[in-house]
Amino acid sequence: MSTRQGKYTVKLDNAPSIVGFAALGSKRESEGPMAQYIDILNADSMFGQTTWEKAESQMQRQVAECAINKANLSTQGIDYVLAGDLLNQCIGSHYGMREMDIPFIGLYGACSTLAEGLGLGAVLVETGAARTVMTVTSSHFCSAEKQYRFPLAYGGVRAPTSQWTVTGAGAAVLGKGSMPPYVRAVSFGSIEDKGVKDLNNMGAAMAPAAAQTLQRYFEDTLTNQDNYDLILTGDLSLVGSDLMQSLMMREGYDLSGKHADCGLMIYDRDTQPVEAGGSGCGCSAAVVCSYIAQSIREGKLQNVLFVGTGALMSPVSVQQGESIPCIAHLVHLSATPV
Amino acid sequence: MSTRQGKYTVKLDNAPSIVGFAALGSKRESEGPMAQYIDILNADSMFGQTTWEKAESQMQRQVAECAINKANLSTQGIDYVLAGDLLNQCIGSHYGMREMDIPFIGLYGACSTLAEGLGLGAVLVETGAARTVMTVTSSHFCSAEKQYRFPLAYGGVRAPTSQWTVTGAGAAVLGKGSMPPYVRAVSFGSIEDKGVKDLNNMGAAMAPAAAQTLQRYFEDTLTNQDNYDLILTGDLSLVGSDLMQSLMMREGYDLSGKHADCGLMIYDRDTQPVEAGGSGCGCSAAVVCSYIAQSIREGKLQNVLFVGTGALMSPVSVQQGESIPCIAHLVHLSATPV
Repeated sequence: MSTRQGKYTVKLDNAPSIVGFAALGSKRESEGPMAQYIDILNADSMFGQTTWEKAESQMQRQVAECAINKANLSTQGIDYVLAGDLLNQCIGSHYGMREMDIPFIGLYGACSTLAEGLGLGAVLVETGAARTVMTVTSSHFCSAEKQYRFPLAYGGVRAPTSQWTVTGAGAAVLGKGSMPPYVRAVSFGSIEDKGVKDLNNMGAAMAPAAAQTLQRYFEDTLTNQDNYDLILTGDLSLVGSDLMQSLMMREGYDLSGKHADCGLMIYDRDTQPVEAGGSGCGCSAAVVCSYIAQSIREGKLQNVLFVGTGALMSPVSVQQGESIPCIAHLVHLSATPV
Repeated sequence: MSTRQGKYTVKLDNAPSIVGFAALGSKRESEGPMAQYIDILNADSMFGQTTWEKAESQMQRQVAECAINKANLSTQGIDYVLAGDLLNQCIGSHYGMREMDIPFIGLYGACSTLAEGLGLGAVLVETGAARTVMTVTSSHFCSAEKQYRFPLAYGGVRAPTSQWTVTGAGAAVLGKGSMPPYVRAVSFGSIEDKGVKDLNNMGAAMAPAAAQTLQRYFEDTLTNQDNYDLILTGDLSLVGSDLMQSLMMREGYDLSGKHADCGLMIYDRDTQPVEAGGSGCGCSAAVVCSYIAQSIREGKLQNVLFVGTGALMSPVSVQQGESIPCIAHLVHLSATPV
């Protein structure tokens, strides 16, 4: 039974389990701190394909198959796949999942897609609408740069606030298992737009959305940061993380020592040239579906609030003078079902 | 309680009600057979905005406000909005819904978006995860042509199999009401790709997906076309409708006299230059959220299977030689909850 808690939160009384999870990365990810936890590492960023877009589809295919295997299931055992990515018309997901013959529910949440998929998937499983659901997402540095910014061959100088799109993917299979992590609550965010127009500072644009969703969740559940081991944002990276912590502090929530960001975890900013950190759907997907899920399964982390962050603009909307609407979805991941 | 029925179908035991619905169209839609049922008709396809993309956002805003009003609710009374459109990164929805402060679940289902949103929304309401959900979608002839095909000023000749993207939108508010239409069952489709590569023949590409979802639903529910007043596809139009009927006939289902297609209903092909018919997210949205919902509410239609169809390619994937992956989602709309 799903129970509404407060205005924005759904409590999952029979918390679904993430029965299988897998992560994938390419060369730069293999040189970062998460490498040892990532299932599939391939230094060939083409993944054997002829275009970056086809490479991204291949990444989704591989990470999905790995997660299904790790869940000891077959594609026939999955009721729905919930997937999306950053590419126009989400072609990473559509071509990646095309041959699987699993009923497909297409999402668009930009870099918040993993959180959106985990949240929706958990609700579908908990309520009996599905027995098993998989959520998958990806990003690819080259397909994203080409689509959102400049041709790669242009070799544009990167701003210090800019983030490096992760070439990575993650998949999670949700079911009625008894293996942690469990998804105990979900809080979908509203679109928040504070007027930031700088495509090279997505962290600053997304921080208010993350703060809003987190604050609403704390108010709904009468909890605060002390009730959790970790408040994990998706891809705010350096600039956005500082801003988010400041916004929360202003509301009376001191996140120091409790907050981490997947964009700051996946790369080592001291040794890797990623400016403010990582970003992309694959950023939080590769971190949550590896190190985070594994740490919860092993009991090293008990309660994690994962706040997936997404920037919902397009190059066209920005060229037309629009600011960047952002969103953040929250899932409570736990080592115990209650 | 949601009950799985067969392999692909979810039966909604306490069928949610479409408590409010609204449709919007522009000039060509105002000259078609559905005009008298459409709430908002505006011959200015800019809808007072400076770009086609901003016009599309404005269309979503207007149709959503109309549906909320017709449901006697305010934005505060809506738990979630499920929205998406055809534009890159779904900017029609993101900018359209930006000011509403309703938790936003972003979808990408191409022209199947209304069916996807009705299906997911109905499940969320029925299971108690939400009390009230709104689903919204749109398409705009000019923003779609510009993005998918040619600059409008190019004045390209249109193939006889091509379809005319509807400048239209639709919104439906789902809740626990006692007003028809009710959503009694949902069947999400798998991605189906039979190798069609012709961007000017989307109906043919989508027909196999529609046939597959419909056949699976019939098998799951042990019903056939005789149990329904109408089998309504989203935007197969002339070529795709014929093909879908042939595919179903081959499986033993004779849909003659039972099948209609929103792409053939929204325009009059004898007097309007729309080639094979209408298409776009706004096509089925403008027909289902006007004439169809109204006819069910008035008892003129009792049981309708709405099969929303979508083509999941992008211009980039087609330029790279890929065929067109397609999808169809089915919802059973009824004048009675059981």
